[in-house]
Amino acid sequence: MNDSTMLFEDLVNPEVLTVQPYVPGKPIDELKREMRISYVTKLASNENPLGSSLKISTGLIAMSNEISRYPDGSSFALREKLAQFIQKPMDWVTIGNGSNELLELVARVFAGRGDEIIYSQYGFAVYPISAQVVGATGVEVPAKEFGHDLEAILNAINEKTKLIYLANPNNPTGTYFDKETWEDFISQVPEKVIVVLDEAYFEYAQDLCPPGTYANGLDYVEDYPNLLVSRTFSKVYGLSSLRVGYMVGYPQVLDYINRLKQPFSVNSYAQAAAMISLTDPQFVKKSLLTNSQGMRQITDFLNSKSIDFIPSVANFVTVNLGDKALELNQKLLQEGVIVRPLAGYQMQEYLRVSIGTNVENRHFLGALNKLL
Amino acid sequence: MNDSTMLFEDLVNPEVLTVQPYVPGKPIDELKREMRISYVTKLASNENPLGSSLKISTGLIAMSNEISRYPDGSSFALREKLAQFIQKPMDWVTIGNGSNELLELVARVFAGRGDEIIYSQYGFAVYPISAQVVGATGVEVPAKEFGHDLEAILNAINEKTKLIYLANPNNPTGTYFDKETWEDFISQVPEKVIVVLDEAYFEYAQDLCPPGTYANGLDYVEDYPNLLVSRTFSKVYGLSSLRVGYMVGYPQVLDYINRLKQPFSVNSYAQAAAMISLTDPQFVKKSLLTNSQGMRQITDFLNSKSIDFIPSVANFVTVNLGDKALELNQKLLQEGVIVRPLAGYQMQEYLRVSIGTNVENRHFLGALNKLL
Repeated sequence: MNDSTMLFEDLVNPEVLTVQPYVPGKPIDELKREMRISYVTKLASNENPLGSSLKISTGLIAMSNEISRYPDGSSFALREKLAQFIQKPMDWVTIGNGSNELLELVARVFAGRGDEIIYSQYGFAVYPISAQVVGATGVEVPAKEFGHDLEAILNAINEKTKLIYLANPNNPTGTYFDKETWEDFISQVPEKVIVVLDEAYFEYAQDLCPPGTYANGLDYVEDYPNLLVSRTFSKVYGLSSLRVGYMVGYPQVLDYINRLKQPFSVNSYAQAAAMISLTDPQFVKKSLLTNSQGMRQITDFLNSKSIDFIPSVANFVTVNLGDKALELNQKLLQEGVIVRPLAGYQMQEYLRVSIGTNVENRHFLGALNKLL
Repeated sequence: MNDSTMLFEDLVNPEVLTVQPYVPGKPIDELKREMRISYVTKLASNENPLGSSLKISTGLIAMSNEISRYPDGSSFALREKLAQFIQKPMDWVTIGNGSNELLELVARVFAGRGDEIIYSQYGFAVYPISAQVVGATGVEVPAKEFGHDLEAILNAINEKTKLIYLANPNNPTGTYFDKETWEDFISQVPEKVIVVLDEAYFEYAQDLCPPGTYANGLDYVEDYPNLLVSRTFSKVYGLSSLRVGYMVGYPQVLDYINRLKQPFSVNSYAQAAAMISLTDPQFVKKSLLTNSQGMRQITDFLNSKSIDFIPSVANFVTVNLGDKALELNQKLLQEGVIVRPLAGYQMQEYLRVSIGTNVENRHFLGALNKLL
């Protein structure tokens, strides 16, 4: 079998060869090993620095009695609770192995070779990947001040467009489009084009946007059958490790997504933890307060040093450090601080910094101050 | 939006409309609700009746400190440990959200519309589903005495064949093909056809097959780059709730699979629990003993009543109850016993019964005895 490499390349579907896999934030343990340091602050993956509701640990201990049982593939109990929480009927909700699973499934349902999928420049990396894995053509629409240019996106729609991915607010830029712009946009999208509105950072945006300016996607799903809104338990609820997200839309559309979903994609611990999360609004409140205070702490520092950043309504801020961004990133690592370089987004001059606890933010700001 | 149903059907990829979703075993809670009974024995999903290693509960408590952190997308630590365990290099192993994720990804890598995927009659339901989701033509080869007919499968290979799914032992029949038949088969499969050997019930088969007759798939991966062997932590390790399986094969082939995998498909709890599982061989030993004793307990009863069943080397046995199978299934439910009817496999006369603990088996046998 000497020519095995050639053999395999011949056999695989062409899209497999073009996929650019997602590059995650550097794990804490990896940095500790590499740098031989023990004190590390990770502000690289927009995780909740407070962890998750304390009620969850207790709840998950009870799960060990059920550890050998397959999960409920329909996530019945979680959907029931979540439907109540968002005030929609149960069949308007589907659960995923992180919202990532659902974002990709929409592409697998609606798009393929020869189709076009639109997303914004600087949009979340999972959108181009989802286009690639189904062999569709990804159409990147230039951003406006690092945010989505919804008018340009409307103009990019053509006969081949099957799907538009929008993030509000957007990751990695933290920008958002306002209610008026959104309503203008969604009312003009042809009915045959599916719009996925990714609201992973919804709770933060609601907290940080000027009152009345942020559009809650769930208010529009009844009016637009081509609209699907995704949310996650990975951010403000702090359940990134367990993988659980959800999508809201017309039952007929969710049914297609459910058909392609693997029978047991959402594990039982994720379902249980998500349910418990919904019973602890105080934890969410505290997380949002920590975030808004941390956002002020970091942006006040940046302003005081006249360092440019992209105004953000999420749990991170993206900072313009010019030519020195990648060098600073390396030096921050040596100081035990992990942030996210954005070269993968063609934003070589920027570093994305997740908002941490007060102590974590000071670790980052102290190190940055020393290095500048 | 009056014609929304039509609109959606027009938009989706054709394979979405033909998918026949997997039908899981009835959950215990559902039966309790329906029948208003509290004592239920579930022998419907081939789960480990002993649960999982007791070391796991303790290990997972420590995970709560990391609950808000994203999983390691490459499952580095688990792959390292597992590679050592199976004595292969690390890059010969990939981890999935259950082996289900990996089984489907192979189809997504290698097959599409116009291609053929071969599997056996009475083969595991996930194989035809995997063919359907990629739009490939599923070719079902007639079984021989409810087992795989490897010679007929060889004869079914043609220019369009991209992939063959084999289960050894097979679910839902419990049959296996022996080492000689396997070696004869794999040496004749054209190099360009990928063979997936699903060994979900590997540990049970090793225990129950006459010595020297069961082929360990891992012994063949180096010789056959077109061979991929999948295994799971859902069966003898008792981690069904958490979703974790693995696949072994040439690194170049696994690389294609990894490209299509979502960044964080395997949750952190699953990775941690699987690692801990590997440190408790006593639990596996005890589980195998419970299984072999339970298998004897159930088959002795069936023999004593002259009830026909398919000889099984897994953790379940499939019983021929003739015309009354579905009626008996309903009556067993009323007695608080959940087994698996196999109408979905065109085996209307059969019920598949997972081997439980001694007490669970007695619950089943007592109920069956009463009903016959």
